[in-house]
Amino acid sequence: MEIIRIPRIVQDTCKKYRMKGRSVGFVPTMGALHEGHLSLIRRSRMENDITVVSIFVNPLQFGPSEDLARYPRDVESDSNKISALETDILFLPDDALMYSPAFSTSVEVAGVSEKLCGRFRPGHFRGVATVVAKLFNIVSPTRAYFGQKDYQQTVVIRRMVKDLNFDLEVVICPTIREHDGLAISSRNTYLGPEERIAAAAIHRSLSRGAGAVLQGERSAGRIREMVEEGLAAEKLINRIDYVAAVDLATLDDVEEIGREIVLAAAVRIGKTRLIDNLLVNV
Amino acid sequence: MEIIRIPRIVQDTCKKYRMKGRSVGFVPTMGALHEGHLSLIRRSRMENDITVVSIFVNPLQFGPSEDLARYPRDVESDSNKISALETDILFLPDDALMYSPAFSTSVEVAGVSEKLCGRFRPGHFRGVATVVAKLFNIVSPTRAYFGQKDYQQTVVIRRMVKDLNFDLEVVICPTIREHDGLAISSRNTYLGPEERIAAAAIHRSLSRGAGAVLQGERSAGRIREMVEEGLAAEKLINRIDYVAAVDLATLDDVEEIGREIVLAAAVRIGKTRLIDNLLVNV
Repeated sequence: MEIIRIPRIVQDTCKKYRMKGRSVGFVPTMGALHEGHLSLIRRSRMENDITVVSIFVNPLQFGPSEDLARYPRDVESDSNKISALETDILFLPDDALMYSPAFSTSVEVAGVSEKLCGRFRPGHFRGVATVVAKLFNIVSPTRAYFGQKDYQQTVVIRRMVKDLNFDLEVVICPTIREHDGLAISSRNTYLGPEERIAAAAIHRSLSRGAGAVLQGERSAGRIREMVEEGLAAEKLINRIDYVAAVDLATLDDVEEIGREIVLAAAVRIGKTRLIDNLLVNV
Repeated sequence: MEIIRIPRIVQDTCKKYRMKGRSVGFVPTMGALHEGHLSLIRRSRMENDITVVSIFVNPLQFGPSEDLARYPRDVESDSNKISALETDILFLPDDALMYSPAFSTSVEVAGVSEKLCGRFRPGHFRGVATVVAKLFNIVSPTRAYFGQKDYQQTVVIRRMVKDLNFDLEVVICPTIREHDGLAISSRNTYLGPEERIAAAAIHRSLSRGAGAVLQGERSAGRIREMVEEGLAAEKLINRIDYVAAVDLATLDDVEEIGREIVLAAAVRIGKTRLIDNLLVNV
């Protein structure tokens, strides 16, 4: 595995592969790699000649009161995991090479960026879209891999790819879960033992809502109430940012469930903000 | 010359050339081609294996009170001029293929977009940056050609290219002028005969300012005054949007001229807004 820190060198290396007709799979990450990330890398390995993984804790996508400083970092352990999966290139840029002092460009996807988590994390998806646009231009991948756990992020990125004519395929991979259903996330490491048990209520509540849809309930309002009740029953969940039943592409609220929807929730347990979602078909 | 209307086909065609190791030069235009555009195409022909010219009157970069509807369009005449220069591909997309109903992404270059013309044309450079990002992703050029006449535009695009890691070279070509110095522009066709004569005052006034710098004047304030006096003396100039002496990269106002600057002006003659600039070295 090659470890490259300079964007220009990654760009030239990837371009050489593409010129030889090789397909390039790309898995952008913020490190603190877990089974979710590894499933993306495995999928990229299966579908492409070359796999590039990036680790970059992107300051642009953290709000001023968010967890940028304490976001988990362990490059050596990450690097070993990536290497064990026979990744070809690990791209490890530092902040200064990604954002020069004169940096002043942003990519904004209006509409879908402002819903759900966007209401609680202003600027977050602008930061995501901007860094992903940069990474796409550096790596010029054939396919880029994202986890469904960050569902809104996948919608924002797909919209950006279409709108700005990026020539690549966005591949969304299923959420990987712990045995009790908790979606695996780098932020789970923030949870104390009791909080960790409480966190399982998120998936349990979403699943109950999804089950009710499958059994014929068509009122999104009643489904949301069911999920909220499940979450409220867990005392360590100290805030529910939202429970939402939304359209797959627009993220607009659905009232009557007549087609496949996303059932999504964001909560706080202590200071830790956790999100999860389920695709629910009628 | 191939005329292609579908972005996807241009993308695949250009990619094939790049895969074969051919360099691609790109000249994005809004049509109404004049000697300025043709000089960009000739330069691209000299420096690249393949030349792509686009004609797209980009609605995103026109304000609600601007001249989108009356902007000059003559695709047949343009097409003949482009073909005569042995351009390889003419890209002629229509609005619907560039902007789908769900389109919602924008690229913004803060700072440099807000100065000079940005103060009078809110959203203009956002529209420019967005469409140029799209065109760059469609054409994936080796080099892209822009005229110095739209100096601020070249600064915005260069900043975007660096910030978003576009892998291409931005080439800025000299302003082409009429015999009396007027910078050639598609908007010159709006001018009546007397207005046309009056318009020469723009370059004449900027040149007088530049001359004073060359003769040792170092106060940007006095240079601006000289240019403003020259413009004010021309009765058909009914508004001066700005006269500015600014830094080449940041477009910040300069007070004491100690290095190369841009001396720029924007005026109205009747309803026609005209801009021009000169690079002035000490």
